[in-house]
Amino acid sequence: MASPARGVADVPALVERVRAGDPRAVGRLISLVEQESSLMREASALLAPYSGGAHVIGITGAPGVGKSTSTSALVSELRRRDARVGVLAIDPTSPFSGGALLGDRIRMQVHSTDPDVFVRSMATRGQLGGLSLATPQALRVLDAAGFDVVIVETVGVGQSEIEIAGLADTTVVLLAPGMGDGVQAAKAGILEIGDVYAVNKADRDGAREVRRDLRTMLAPSSRPPQAWKPKILLTVASTSEGVDELADAVEAHHSWLDANGELTRRRVRRARDEIEAIALTALRFRLADEPGGQRLADLADSVVARERDPYSAADVLLEAVMSQKL
Amino acid sequence: MASPARGVADVPALVERVRAGDPRAVGRLISLVEQESSLMREASALLAPYSGGAHVIGITGAPGVGKSTSTSALVSELRRRDARVGVLAIDPTSPFSGGALLGDRIRMQVHSTDPDVFVRSMATRGQLGGLSLATPQALRVLDAAGFDVVIVETVGVGQSEIEIAGLADTTVVLLAPGMGDGVQAAKAGILEIGDVYAVNKADRDGAREVRRDLRTMLAPSSRPPQAWKPKILLTVASTSEGVDELADAVEAHHSWLDANGELTRRRVRRARDEIEAIALTALRFRLADEPGGQRLADLADSVVARERDPYSAADVLLEAVMSQKL
Repeated sequence: MASPARGVADVPALVERVRAGDPRAVGRLISLVEQESSLMREASALLAPYSGGAHVIGITGAPGVGKSTSTSALVSELRRRDARVGVLAIDPTSPFSGGALLGDRIRMQVHSTDPDVFVRSMATRGQLGGLSLATPQALRVLDAAGFDVVIVETVGVGQSEIEIAGLADTTVVLLAPGMGDGVQAAKAGILEIGDVYAVNKADRDGAREVRRDLRTMLAPSSRPPQAWKPKILLTVASTSEGVDELADAVEAHHSWLDANGELTRRRVRRARDEIEAIALTALRFRLADEPGGQRLADLADSVVARERDPYSAADVLLEAVMSQKL
Repeated sequence: MASPARGVADVPALVERVRAGDPRAVGRLISLVEQESSLMREASALLAPYSGGAHVIGITGAPGVGKSTSTSALVSELRRRDARVGVLAIDPTSPFSGGALLGDRIRMQVHSTDPDVFVRSMATRGQLGGLSLATPQALRVLDAAGFDVVIVETVGVGQSEIEIAGLADTTVVLLAPGMGDGVQAAKAGILEIGDVYAVNKADRDGAREVRRDLRTMLAPSSRPPQAWKPKILLTVASTSEGVDELADAVEAHHSWLDANGELTRRRVRRARDEIEAIALTALRFRLADEPGGQRLADLADSVVARERDPYSAADVLLEAVMSQKL
C-alpha cells in the first residue's frame, strides 16, 4: 500500500496501540472517526483485518425505561463472566458531541476504574438522518481493540432503533410498565427487531401485564420451527435483579446465531448496509456540493418558478453528475 | 408533451378534477403518490404549474402533547376566517398505511361534513429513513387543489420533526407541561425549527414554567434585528382557548415571510431538498438493485471475509454504477 498522507494523526501507529488495547488510543481513534475526517477511510482499511471478533449487542428502548442503568448492570454481570466490554452510548437526537446526560455518565462511572471496560458517548446525527457513518466505524475500533462484547446503547426514537438492530448481532429491547408500551411496541415496529425483551422496573405495577402483552404479540404464528424464539424477561436493573438471566439470554442468542450460520448472514447484511451508506454519502456530496451544487440550486429556482417539476429536475441533475468522471 | 403511458389511472383527467376541488379526486391522487408508483412522476409534472399558492403549516411535538386536538382546533379557527384547509396527518413510525390511531381520527371527525376541509392520514416511512418522497407530492396535490392552508401534522420523533420544518412555510412546535420539556426541547433541536411555540394543556400545572424556560432558551442572543422572533403561546386546544392567538401568530409569520422574501427562499430550499431526495432515491436503486445489487452482495461478502474494508468496497461499487449509461 502506498504511504497515505497522515494529516494530524499517525493512524497506523494509533491502530497498533488500539490492537494492544491502549484505552487512550481507542478513545483517540474513535474521536477521529467521529469527526468523519478523511482519516476514517485510512483507519477503516487498517482495522478491517482485525474485526469480527466481538459480540455486538444493541440495547434500545423509549426514554425512561432505564437504558443506562440496564447497560451498566449488564456490563457488571458480563465482567463477572470475565468478558472485556466496550460500550458506545449513542444519542442520535442530540447535535452535541459527547452530549450524554450527566446522570447517564454517573451511572456508568462505577466502571471507570476497570481497565477491561471502555465507555464512550457519541452524539452524532447522520447526514441522511439517523445514525452517522461513524457508528459502525467506532464499533470496528472497539472490535479491533479485542473487546469480547461491544454494547451499543441508543434511545429508541424514530429510525435509530431499527438502525441499531441492523448494527447488532443481538438486539435487546427494554420496556417498562406504565408507559403504554403495548401500543408503543406495536406502533414503533420493535416487535420485528428484538431478540431479547426485558421488562425493566419489574418491581412496579403492571410489569407482568407488559410481559403478557408482549408474549401475545410475539406469539409464533408463522415463525418457522428453527427460528429464534425471542426471550421475554423481567428485570430490576437498579438492584441487578434478573440481569444474570439477561446475560444468559444474550449469550444463548449468540450461540444460536453462531450455530445456525445466522451470525455471518447478519454481518453480511451489515456490511452491505455500510457499503451502501458510504457510497450514497459520496453520491450525495457529488449531487449537492461538487460538481452538482450550482446545478441543483438553479434547478430548485426553476421548480419554484413553476418552469419544471422536481422529477425532471432530478433527471437533469443525475445526468450532469453521472457524466463526470469519478 | 408526448402522450405518456397511462397504466391504471388517467392522471391528466384526475389532475383536472383535483384542480376543480373534487375531494374524491384529491384522495385518489394522494393514494397514487403514496404508492410511489410511476404515476407519481406524471402527476408531479402536471401539478407543478399549479402549486405554490397554499400556506404550508407544519405542526409537530412529542407524543401526548395534543397534536390532533390542536390541529382540529386550528382548522376550526381557520375555517371561521374563511380559509379552505387541507390536513396531512403523517405517522413516520408506522409501517401501516392509513394507520393513524382511531382517537386521532375521531378528533378530526368534526370536520368530515365540511366540504372545505380535507383530512388525510399517511403512514409512510421513507427508504432513506424519515418521511417518504410521497409527502411533498401529497402536499403538492392539496396545493394544486386550491386549499389556502395545508397543515402537515407529524409526531416529533427522531428526524421527522426536522423534515417537517423543511417542508413547511411555518412550523408550529407543541409542548405540554409535565413532560420534561425543557430538557427535551434542548436535546431534540426543536429550538432551531419553531416559528411559533404553543404550550398546550395550559390549564395544567407547570405550563407557565415551560413558557418561561422556552423564553430563556429562545432569547435572541445573536439573532439579527430583522429576524423573525418566535412567538410563544399558551393554549388549551380541547376548549379552543388561545387557538385564535395561535391562528394570528401563524398568519403573522406568513405575512412576515412574504414581506421579507423569506417565503421564496424557503421554497427554493424545499425544492432543492426534494430534487436531491428524488435523485438519491434513483441512485440508491441503482446501487442496491440494478445494476449494482449483485456487485454489492459480493462486496459485502468480501468485507465480512476481511479481504476488503467498506470504503474501498464503496469505491468499487460507485465505479461500477457510474460507468453505466443513465
